[in-house]
Amino acid sequence: MAEADLRVQGFMDRHYRPVTATIVTRLRAIVGEGHVYDDPAALLDYAHDEVAGDEYVHMPEVVVKPATAAEISQIMRLANRERIPVTPRGAGSGLSCGAVPVYGGIVLSLERMNRILEIDRENMVAVVEPGVVTNDINEAVSEYGLFYAGYPMSVELCFIGGNVAENAGGGRAIKYGVTGRYVLGLEVVLPTGEIVQLGGKRVKDVTGYDLLHLMVGSEGTLGIFTRIILRLLPLPKARAVLLIPFADVPTAIRAVPMIMTQGRIIPTSIEFMDRLSVQTAYDYIGERLPHPDIGAMLLIEVDGYSESQVEAEYNAIVDLCLEAGALDVYVGNTPAAERRIWRPRQEMAEAFKAVCPVQSLEDIVVPLAQIPDLMPELERLSQKYDVLIPCYGHAGDGNLHATIVKQPGTSMEEWREKLPVILEDLYHVVARLGGTISGEHGIGSKRARYLPLVMDPTLITLQRRIKQVFDPLNILNPGKIFPEMPGGEEGR
Amino acid sequence: MAEADLRVQGFMDRHYRPVTATIVTRLRAIVGEGHVYDDPAALLDYAHDEVAGDEYVHMPEVVVKPATAAEISQIMRLANRERIPVTPRGAGSGLSCGAVPVYGGIVLSLERMNRILEIDRENMVAVVEPGVVTNDINEAVSEYGLFYAGYPMSVELCFIGGNVAENAGGGRAIKYGVTGRYVLGLEVVLPTGEIVQLGGKRVKDVTGYDLLHLMVGSEGTLGIFTRIILRLLPLPKARAVLLIPFADVPTAIRAVPMIMTQGRIIPTSIEFMDRLSVQTAYDYIGERLPHPDIGAMLLIEVDGYSESQVEAEYNAIVDLCLEAGALDVYVGNTPAAERRIWRPRQEMAEAFKAVCPVQSLEDIVVPLAQIPDLMPELERLSQKYDVLIPCYGHAGDGNLHATIVKQPGTSMEEWREKLPVILEDLYHVVARLGGTISGEHGIGSKRARYLPLVMDPTLITLQRRIKQVFDPLNILNPGKIFPEMPGGEEGR
Repeated sequence: MAEADLRVQGFMDRHYRPVTATIVTRLRAIVGEGHVYDDPAALLDYAHDEVAGDEYVHMPEVVVKPATAAEISQIMRLANRERIPVTPRGAGSGLSCGAVPVYGGIVLSLERMNRILEIDRENMVAVVEPGVVTNDINEAVSEYGLFYAGYPMSVELCFIGGNVAENAGGGRAIKYGVTGRYVLGLEVVLPTGEIVQLGGKRVKDVTGYDLLHLMVGSEGTLGIFTRIILRLLPLPKARAVLLIPFADVPTAIRAVPMIMTQGRIIPTSIEFMDRLSVQTAYDYIGERLPHPDIGAMLLIEVDGYSESQVEAEYNAIVDLCLEAGALDVYVGNTPAAERRIWRPRQEMAEAFKAVCPVQSLEDIVVPLAQIPDLMPELERLSQKYDVLIPCYGHAGDGNLHATIVKQPGTSMEEWREKLPVILEDLYHVVARLGGTISGEHGIGSKRARYLPLVMDPTLITLQRRIKQVFDPLNILNPGKIFPEMPGGEEGR
Repeated sequence: MAEADLRVQGFMDRHYRPVTATIVTRLRAIVGEGHVYDDPAALLDYAHDEVAGDEYVHMPEVVVKPATAAEISQIMRLANRERIPVTPRGAGSGLSCGAVPVYGGIVLSLERMNRILEIDRENMVAVVEPGVVTNDINEAVSEYGLFYAGYPMSVELCFIGGNVAENAGGGRAIKYGVTGRYVLGLEVVLPTGEIVQLGGKRVKDVTGYDLLHLMVGSEGTLGIFTRIILRLLPLPKARAVLLIPFADVPTAIRAVPMIMTQGRIIPTSIEFMDRLSVQTAYDYIGERLPHPDIGAMLLIEVDGYSESQVEAEYNAIVDLCLEAGALDVYVGNTPAAERRIWRPRQEMAEAFKAVCPVQSLEDIVVPLAQIPDLMPELERLSQKYDVLIPCYGHAGDGNLHATIVKQPGTSMEEWREKLPVILEDLYHVVARLGGTISGEHGIGSKRARYLPLVMDPTLITLQRRIKQVFDPLNILNPGKIFPEMPGGEEGR
């Protein structure tokens, strides 16, 4: 741990108090005997999210599972009185350590608050608790001809509350936008315990500052969501997926704006995979590559309200891609064919974990047209630091999951020393190209120390002060987003 | 003026200092001789926006017209040192007194910053200065097959900077959302003079709190925008407009969710006009009503990327509306016919001003399905207080411009006494129906005193404190959004 980090740790350890047996008793009185856990085996499950690496594991002192906003309010008031940090947690499927209790204390799991409270067809909204699995919302509303358009890749696992906290993106953002676009209202327990209502079942609202969307993406640092009002859309009636191999990255990427500006089509998804990603994913699922000369691949989905419209759109995309130099085009317009085409993309993260679990899954974003400038830089980093850097992600958004993967021959000690150097180098490149360090995974504690590389100190100070407005004692999810000040002067 | 208002005025008059000849000289040194105005005739143009009524007029002490962010930064530093309020101003087409200098001081007009700086076709963004007329953006980008989807009704007059400050909505929000959806980046001069960059040419960004969208809709109280990066979309290739008379309001409103849930179509616009609005608008433009038995009317626009898709959509809407009880349907699918159908809606505000200029144009929003519950309440208010309340607006969003219009026989004294009572009554109704007091016009100084009727005091306090984080001396656009505290304890 660096010296500054040690100073911060020391300050925070003095700032917070331990969870005593008395506190545990009080927590039991609030949420009920059976919903407080403090045995080490149970705590371990709540000590990490999906970020790989022992250095990202932090044990909570106690886990509580409240069932209502009123219980959460009491927990927050207790935590403020006793100066105990509280880390809210959804499904634990995050990729930035947002739900990891870096200073110990209480992990507040929302898993019991998992009800779909209302499906209001007339107003086209769903009202849900934060612990509902995102995909379950779609299963519930599809029978009414409606759908929820948020679509993180972990949709069958993640909780909607976590999606809102991280402003999750995913594979359909190019057409449908990210989670925040669909959040019309939130019930929030503030860090100091007040329960407030933001927004409602209304699609327009300029009554005061947009606190609702300040909450969205605040990574559990400004409030705990206890009820979420989501806008629904009419369910598309038709869909098709295209798998399009190209000989190289620049040719593939050049096709993307052509589809939108020349074709005047906004596809539902435009996913990108470089050669290494394609090879690794197809090896992992045990299938042959769709074309022997693949240097890059696009996976494009279109949807719409008639078969004929979708067919017209995908035919236009096929023509444009072939004109742009595609090696071939495969069309999937049956559910089975669609699943088959999507499978390598969906298994991608697992595929790389199987190759080497020691890696850093990145979430950089650059302007779409700058992707071709990014690729040689990834190649340079890969050579310079002797790592693999496969790159895949949401090409339509410029949001790429470049993944720094340790070579088998590199020792863990060497890896731990060089990873921060590689990340600094990468983040400088991204900033120079007009991008930033996270498009959808969040900063959490994983990237907090790198924030100053891409953000003006004035903006970091403003954010610390906003945090302080909501959470004067820094009780709710400390250690996330911005680096703690060594002396704790700010944000206290 | 109420006693509390007088106390606030007194406090603020002591808090701020007058604009002296020395200050005017310094302003001239910053922006150049010819760009500072202090003669009363010139000042009068900057003393009001489009809200009618002498009580909303407040004279600035001086008007400055800077040309760069650096000049604005110097002005803000000077204003902080000298404690002079600064009110930023776009085209002055606002409807909530957001650009009116309620405590005098400096009006900072952005009218000279009117350049389209860049049209980046590959990234599908435009970079513009705040003083560009919104419609001019579309004129500039259409040749590239692109369009900017923000569409306030004053699109040919208003400035894009004002649209961002108010998070302007308008007639296409049901399909395309409001201004904020298209704001990817902002250069902002903070109230204390720092120049910061938020966002960029990227469609996804979760790096820290969403300060970008906290700025959007902050009504010129948190910063002055000097450069705006806007997302563009592919320009639709086809469009059609439907004019659909109904016998009564409930029948018309019931058709709206049917179109979206049964028809699975999101139209570009669903505009609503009640009988009184229809009659007044057609009288004003000198045309006959489209049907003798009109009790309400919908104006529905669809657009898309092929003639056949648009035709399929409007045919489906026609069938659904006739099934729902429409009296007739008129289709406009040539530019001339479209203009003719839109004209009464576009002339609506002017039509009512011609009938009686003494009125309060409201901007309430309720959940779509609650519009039929709102209508009898408007009728009740109209009877109880002896006023006309025509109602028109964006039915697809539940955002209705109910307009309280003085009867010719009512004296101005009586009107001034009863208007606040009517508004309180109306706003209580709106809150009870799950709505709020502004969907797109903003709170400004016109509605600030009513904010506590629809918003939890905890949320108002949080907003005051956020304002204080950005603007410790309350220099930038004071008196807007939240009521000033009589003693000025908060927000100082």
